[in-house]
Amino acid sequence: MSAAKPFKPNPKLDLVLERVVDVPPSLVWACWTMPKHLKKWFTPAPWKTVDAQVDLRPGGRFHFVMQSPEGENFPNTGCFLEVVKNERLTWTNALQPGYRPAVLGSGEMDFPFTAVVSMKKHGKGTKYTAMAIHRDEKATAVHAKMGFHDGWGKALDQLVALAKKM
Amino acid sequence: MSAAKPFKPNPKLDLVLERVVDVPPSLVWACWTMPKHLKKWFTPAPWKTVDAQVDLRPGGRFHFVMQSPEGENFPNTGCFLEVVKNERLTWTNALQPGYRPAVLGSGEMDFPFTAVVSMKKHGKGTKYTAMAIHRDEKATAVHAKMGFHDGWGKALDQLVALAKKM
Repeated sequence: MSAAKPFKPNPKLDLVLERVVDVPPSLVWACWTMPKHLKKWFTPAPWKTVDAQVDLRPGGRFHFVMQSPEGENFPNTGCFLEVVKNERLTWTNALQPGYRPAVLGSGEMDFPFTAVVSMKKHGKGTKYTAMAIHRDEKATAVHAKMGFHDGWGKALDQLVALAKKM
Repeated sequence: MSAAKPFKPNPKLDLVLERVVDVPPSLVWACWTMPKHLKKWFTPAPWKTVDAQVDLRPGGRFHFVMQSPEGENFPNTGCFLEVVKNERLTWTNALQPGYRPAVLGSGEMDFPFTAVVSMKKHGKGTKYTAMAIHRDEKATAVHAKMGFHDGWGKALDQLVALAKKM
């Protein structure tokens, strides 16, 4: 119905990666929404993304499997919330596809979060903002300690390198 | 971006109230989305809805306070997910406003659910469907035992009575 208001991060609860990158929003969008691209950049090396499935609509399924260097698989399933082409992609693992509340409390679900990935034209490039929104300070701390900034930053480097080859 | 696919309820996890009512979708929508109306029908008597706040957009806040006959207040805060005028309203208490994952595990949050309220023109009336989507069978059972069908049905009676006076 109406456009969402810009999200104002809460510094105690939200982790934010903001950077200007020299590829256009349309390529950032393509990298985030097409499984064949996601598999190439989404997980910082030496980890791999060995599967990615995207049902690109509000309520649709977002599924990916990360693989550790030792070969262990870590599947994740979430739900898209906002799909605004070339502008904003929002998804959460607090809900499963079809907006079903997730069963929390085990493995990767210890810190449910919502990700808001925004891209805005900036010269010939993109002002890229990735925000992870948490329920409480503990969840935020766990995510920060797991290396949010380093991990999402390295993954963005991989995204940019991939986009430049497109 | 794209319209949501129709939800197919899972009989083990979803509670559904479906009824044809003789007021048009536009009035059902008004009753569901305007605080002054919500306060008059949302809670089956002798309970009352003593406050209602609606920020009607995806990510927006849905807040209401139910009051028991003994005068005890039960506040609830959730987040709208889909706002399709006169057709479908989706909200969840598994997320807080701005899509922030909710802190679960106490009071009314013991069984987080997503509500999908659909209205479809049916003659001069409305085919009304309210679905509560749960994370697991336990949450579904708790909600059923709390009187989902009776409660949501009585509230709908109140909505219809109110709409007929509009």
